[in-house]
Amino acid sequence: LETSQFDAAKTILTPVQPADIADVIESLPSRLQVLAFRLLSKNEAIDVYEHLAPPVQESLLEDFKHPEVLEIFNQMSPDDRVRLLDELPAKVVRQLFKHLSNEERKATSLLLGYKPETAGRIMTTEYVSLKEDYTASQALDRIRHIATSFETIYVLYVTDDSRRLTGTLSLRNLVMARPEEYIAQIMVPDVVSVHTNTDQEEVARTIQHYDFLAVPVVDSEQRLVGIVTVDDVIDILEEEATEDIYTAGGVQSQGDDYFKSSLMTVARKRVVWLFILLITNTLTSQVIHSQEDVLQKTITLAAFIPLLIDAGGNVGAQSSTVVIRGLNTEDVRLTQVLPVIVREGGAGALLGLMLGIVVTVWAYFLQGDWLVAITVGSSLFIISLLAAFAGGGLPFLFKSMKLDPALMSAPFITTAVDVLGVAIYLLIARSLLGI
Amino acid sequence: LETSQFDAAKTILTPVQPADIADVIESLPSRLQVLAFRLLSKNEAIDVYEHLAPPVQESLLEDFKHPEVLEIFNQMSPDDRVRLLDELPAKVVRQLFKHLSNEERKATSLLLGYKPETAGRIMTTEYVSLKEDYTASQALDRIRHIATSFETIYVLYVTDDSRRLTGTLSLRNLVMARPEEYIAQIMVPDVVSVHTNTDQEEVARTIQHYDFLAVPVVDSEQRLVGIVTVDDVIDILEEEATEDIYTAGGVQSQGDDYFKSSLMTVARKRVVWLFILLITNTLTSQVIHSQEDVLQKTITLAAFIPLLIDAGGNVGAQSSTVVIRGLNTEDVRLTQVLPVIVREGGAGALLGLMLGIVVTVWAYFLQGDWLVAITVGSSLFIISLLAAFAGGGLPFLFKSMKLDPALMSAPFITTAVDVLGVAIYLLIARSLLGI
Repeated sequence: LETSQFDAAKTILTPVQPADIADVIESLPSRLQVLAFRLLSKNEAIDVYEHLAPPVQESLLEDFKHPEVLEIFNQMSPDDRVRLLDELPAKVVRQLFKHLSNEERKATSLLLGYKPETAGRIMTTEYVSLKEDYTASQALDRIRHIATSFETIYVLYVTDDSRRLTGTLSLRNLVMARPEEYIAQIMVPDVVSVHTNTDQEEVARTIQHYDFLAVPVVDSEQRLVGIVTVDDVIDILEEEATEDIYTAGGVQSQGDDYFKSSLMTVARKRVVWLFILLITNTLTSQVIHSQEDVLQKTITLAAFIPLLIDAGGNVGAQSSTVVIRGLNTEDVRLTQVLPVIVREGGAGALLGLMLGIVVTVWAYFLQGDWLVAITVGSSLFIISLLAAFAGGGLPFLFKSMKLDPALMSAPFITTAVDVLGVAIYLLIARSLLGI
Repeated sequence: LETSQFDAAKTILTPVQPADIADVIESLPSRLQVLAFRLLSKNEAIDVYEHLAPPVQESLLEDFKHPEVLEIFNQMSPDDRVRLLDELPAKVVRQLFKHLSNEERKATSLLLGYKPETAGRIMTTEYVSLKEDYTASQALDRIRHIATSFETIYVLYVTDDSRRLTGTLSLRNLVMARPEEYIAQIMVPDVVSVHTNTDQEEVARTIQHYDFLAVPVVDSEQRLVGIVTVDDVIDILEEEATEDIYTAGGVQSQGDDYFKSSLMTVARKRVVWLFILLITNTLTSQVIHSQEDVLQKTITLAAFIPLLIDAGGNVGAQSSTVVIRGLNTEDVRLTQVLPVIVREGGAGALLGLMLGIVVTVWAYFLQGDWLVAITVGSSLFIISLLAAFAGGGLPFLFKSMKLDPALMSAPFITTAVDVLGVAIYLLIARSLLGI
């Protein structure tokens, strides 16, 4: 490539999947990216462009602002174009908009008008719609005519004169049908659809639930305005999973590229949770501070504070992890709060019992005082129980208050375990050791 | 339904999606499940059955062991059948096997012969294969003939005489082609395929990467043996995400139903991680124990131990969360270890600086001793730095050792932060406070 042997490079690139070409281009230094990209035929270029990461798409746009790229931009699927525009600075967006054909500009504005993370924003307007009075062979002819550049033609949508969705039809059933059959006879009249402002995660769950290849998006008058396809769903569910994992790990996520965001951004996304911890720990420190006389008399008690906090925090985290994931994947319903709390409470008691016994024996061997050992063990039992209840119950509380349970549960569980845990520990010590 | 008005119930159930019928049946008491299920027509019954949760599938099988169910079992897709058999006791599996037709038994045994969580186990053997010398219209005729019960006909596979995969073709391109064109002319000869023993997560990533509807599975002689479809991929990626989330939360996952597993099983899955924590904490307690004289002299130091452990643990967890997720979704590559460590180290330093300053001021207000305050603040800075390095670097170490980074990183990070953190804290206290 370096030696500009265009034709050789072209033959190497040609018989490969667009996604793979995109990977190769991304791995090149940016000067060569432009060069490699220009070697592609126009049709290939569009496919490959849609597979490139947004930063590379952006730099290619800036690098050669000439008709070739604008043409590609014009021919992208509306949903992929919107995704790119979301990443670009407003000035560039305005410039690009000028170059879109009237039709494409309308489609793009439509999508950009919907709120981010809703069905309206992620849908594509390229779907095949049919009328009920077409015959199967007329429908097939229509598809052959219009569908070359459409994202999917495997699910077809039947609408009435005012564009209201009346049925769906798979290409499979159309191919299987006798040529003279009417669409009205072979379509499925029971349509599952989502609304333009349905949350993208719910859209994804709908497609997952029904094993659909695409789901139609309708406006408030039941008119068909677009479809969301299964390939977008995979990315959405992965994004949501990343969000859940990040939130559980105390990191705010916005789905940026790891290496692109500045160190300040990274720190900002993490510092919130750390400052919440500081506040929690102010309380814990106050508790310890106010009970200093207990520690002063039996300094070995201090050695077990990390153990109690770590173990309690983890029992709580385990319960909340399972419950939050269950609520997010809809394996656990909001109404099941009671059986879940009973279950997690039971698990907490069982774990607390096992850990408590082991820790009691172990604490005795460490410092040779049965009273201290029993203090540590019984505190751990109570803390485990408390943590499991908090981890099992709080996600339900926050979910029913329409707050994100993954975000809200951790601070409260930590506070419960740390503050109450240390308080319980030192109070038990005070009464058992007679201080 | 209770009053046995069969026909009325039937009209209610009929025009609805199979997945929804399955939901309704699952919500009924088990006596009524059988009744409701029998109301369905045979074709519906198969579709609905495949959408039912495995425990319900199982109870239906046991509830009425008569020809009707066996017939349905016989007509399920091989991959759905294998998923059901995986859940059933061996005795039931043997009985059911007897009732399969010869052909279906062969298909099912084939799948069961592959290791769990590989492409071979999750693939379906129902795909449409074509020969290169068919014309487009011959191919369409063939599809009309054989494809009524096949899982997908949107991707077609072209094989040679020894069943080796030579190309793929979308139904879309077939429909678009002129009737007299040969398959060899319109197929895509560059085939992306996976091997029967490819891990299911890699299969899912392949489909996700290329935005495929299905990926072909070949054996070691490049012969086509099955396909994996996109609807399975969604479930696999969700399963893997749940596994990652559970592991991060210290819970071993096996994808069981939440309410079905016994309390002992639940406890067993969580206790391992808690015992690892105990061992870590033995070390921490030993460190505190051996430095008791420092604490004895300045008992306020004890009040800050929870703060240091919590904050350090969280900085480490944040780094490892981001890095592990990046490695799992292949956004971060193994070779990028150096930039990642530099980045996480930088983030750790920045966070440590911010937290350290705040904590120093705050600790001074809490107990009025600048030396103690500086001890706490500077320890927190060092601990943050250490935690971020551990969180950024350890996942790479474990990944390159072919260990699960999500599983292995947490114990080591906790140990590093707790044991080294407390040691650093007390050593700084010793030298600053001149003990």
